[in-house]
Amino acid sequence: MTDLYRSRHETSPAMLPRQDPVVHGRWTPDAPITRAQTELYERNGYLVLEDVFTHDEVNTLQRETARLLADPGGLAPETLITEPGSDEIRSIFAIHDQNPLMGKLASDDRLAGVARFLLDDAVSIHQARLNYKPGFEGKEFYWHSDFETWHVEDGMPRMRALSISVLLADNNANNGPLMLIPGSHKSYLTCVGRTPENHYRDSLKKQEYGVPDRASLTALAQTHGIDAPTGNAGTVVLFDCNTMHGSNGNITPFPRSNAFFVYNAVSNALVEPFGAKTRRPAFIADRRFRPVEITGGHNPMREHAA
Amino acid sequence: MTDLYRSRHETSPAMLPRQDPVVHGRWTPDAPITRAQTELYERNGYLVLEDVFTHDEVNTLQRETARLLADPGGLAPETLITEPGSDEIRSIFAIHDQNPLMGKLASDDRLAGVARFLLDDAVSIHQARLNYKPGFEGKEFYWHSDFETWHVEDGMPRMRALSISVLLADNNANNGPLMLIPGSHKSYLTCVGRTPENHYRDSLKKQEYGVPDRASLTALAQTHGIDAPTGNAGTVVLFDCNTMHGSNGNITPFPRSNAFFVYNAVSNALVEPFGAKTRRPAFIADRRFRPVEITGGHNPMREHAA
Repeated sequence: MTDLYRSRHETSPAMLPRQDPVVHGRWTPDAPITRAQTELYERNGYLVLEDVFTHDEVNTLQRETARLLADPGGLAPETLITEPGSDEIRSIFAIHDQNPLMGKLASDDRLAGVARFLLDDAVSIHQARLNYKPGFEGKEFYWHSDFETWHVEDGMPRMRALSISVLLADNNANNGPLMLIPGSHKSYLTCVGRTPENHYRDSLKKQEYGVPDRASLTALAQTHGIDAPTGNAGTVVLFDCNTMHGSNGNITPFPRSNAFFVYNAVSNALVEPFGAKTRRPAFIADRRFRPVEITGGHNPMREHAA
Repeated sequence: MTDLYRSRHETSPAMLPRQDPVVHGRWTPDAPITRAQTELYERNGYLVLEDVFTHDEVNTLQRETARLLADPGGLAPETLITEPGSDEIRSIFAIHDQNPLMGKLASDDRLAGVARFLLDDAVSIHQARLNYKPGFEGKEFYWHSDFETWHVEDGMPRMRALSISVLLADNNANNGPLMLIPGSHKSYLTCVGRTPENHYRDSLKKQEYGVPDRASLTALAQTHGIDAPTGNAGTVVLFDCNTMHGSNGNITPFPRSNAFFVYNAVSNALVEPFGAKTRRPAFIADRRFRPVEITGGHNPMREHAA
């Protein structure tokens, strides 16, 4: 298969044009989001939806998340990610497979239905996790395009995937919210810094791979600005697989957590990695390509469609 | 001298009442800030002033700052602070003594005059520095009350000092701006964690001393909230010596810099440190108690006084 998005091969970065649509389908009055929302997503590469879940639903999700973090005994050990030097759990991967409530959330029409519409295809879960960022010592997450990683390390051929984050704690400007560069999804920034043949152990750290260069990030941020959507628990943030994003650390006492689902078009099934010798584990990059059976007809967004 | 603000002596933290006024004088129509601004400062422990400097003045200060950071050759080496593992300068201390323009800025009526009014006394410079926080890798600065440090390590007897930061780059919500807890200045949070007799080298790190505990920080932030004033270059932020503040790191491409002056009432001259065996160096804690000769009559704020 031709590598349309070759990265980590050259010694200098390049800003290449995107080869795929952002909104793969066409908006109709039956769409689960409004025409204006669809256009906003197309233009910015992300969309914030409020009041998607009821107060009770948010409470239930929060309680379940707290329970899982406090008592992860029944979960597969390899899916539990802790910070180096800490026992505290930062992420639980493959959460949709391991927890019925989270599985139901991943299949909910209000999330999966929007993904199906934007990708114009049946969708499968590429990755699903619960994220927890503590207060006081929350670590930053450096700028990246998810697609660059999924393409190079997981073999995702095309830009026909998106992420949906369901905020499970209030995000304000000060507790390290997700930052996105609007419009960055329309270019593909290739990364340099391929691991040298004789690398040292330090260079194996994740952040050595697929890191965008500073000059390109500066150009992107100066051209497009940076947006950090804030919202209360229950707010839903959708973003395209190629939208440049990251987050600052968090010294405030207020932790953040979210349920995070990556939907991929089933027609965009993973092949062999384009820039790595081995596949990443299944809990990071699902290769079952099992179409999500979308459940639940309740969709408050549809009521606003116009 | 009685230690009114004993800290780093007990094994559990305490929230003690402040023993000193916040606004030491009385507002009159001659004051350099308005009555409303004075009340806001008293209540919140900080105040943001915009349009204090002309565009040309801001440009001149920015050029001089860039010049000093790029070519620090003429400056005293001990006053240049770099991040560990980097040659890049993060702070230049005693900048008012080492650079005529910064000396003039420190003495400017628009800064020193406001300090003199709020402290109701002639003022001396306790500390003066240029700060530079780079983009991409700007480090966080954990919560602290400056007064706790100045009292314990420098022997500042009373809460009759304040800091003025002149922003020399635009501060937005995303590039790690100063965060303050409004109202936190009215209590004195004692710190635990006195260095043990048999400490290891790691425990000598600055952040091991005078660190507020998490439960108290949570209570303060939940009671009062957190504010992160934003503003363009030239914005002036004044804050009381006991206002709890800190800042997150900064992964955005946009660096931050400011000129930072601590004014102390001359009647509040330093004595021996209340909780340290040795004094800190003069470039960190000036002991000359030389009253600032305030210069410049131009004060755009006075025009708004009412």
